[in-house]
Amino acid sequence: MSRYRVLVTLKPALLDSAGRAVNDALHSLGFAGVKDVRIGKLVEIEMAEGGRAQVEEMCKKLLANPVIETYEIEDPA
Amino acid sequence: MSRYRVLVTLKPALLDSAGRAVNDALHSLGFAGVKDVRIGKLVEIEMAEGGRAQVEEMCKKLLANPVIETYEIEDPA
Repeated sequence: MSRYRVLVTLKPALLDSAGRAVNDALHSLGFAGVKDVRIGKLVEIEMAEGGRAQVEEMCKKLLANPVIETYEIEDPA
Repeated sequence: MSRYRVLVTLKPALLDSAGRAVNDALHSLGFAGVKDVRIGKLVEIEMAEGGRAQVEEMCKKLLANPVIETYEIEDPA
């Protein structure tokens, strides 16, 4: 059994309004050192069989929208 | 400038309905090896000053709901 982690983030060129809201909220709370916040999705996939190539395929078919998002696959620890 | 990553996940005891939906969708697409999927949030924080202790504080105050979520902080690469 292996557990892959997929991190899906908006492409840098796109405005991340949720991230902007969190950034502003952190400033209101006094965290002045924060320069930028980006929000993404974390998908943890537990697999009985199949490997990284399959996870890559899942990203392309379902997990990420290639028009606006990029993804990163972390191998099982 | 350092860039921290915060991974926020639902506690394991809680039903993750979004994860369940993705799990079912992956099965429909033919990925039979998938046993479980959990969805979480990824927060990338770019900081001009302040370190891990501050990020920890942000998690407690804003980024995670301690009743239902756990978080993990990844140090800047």
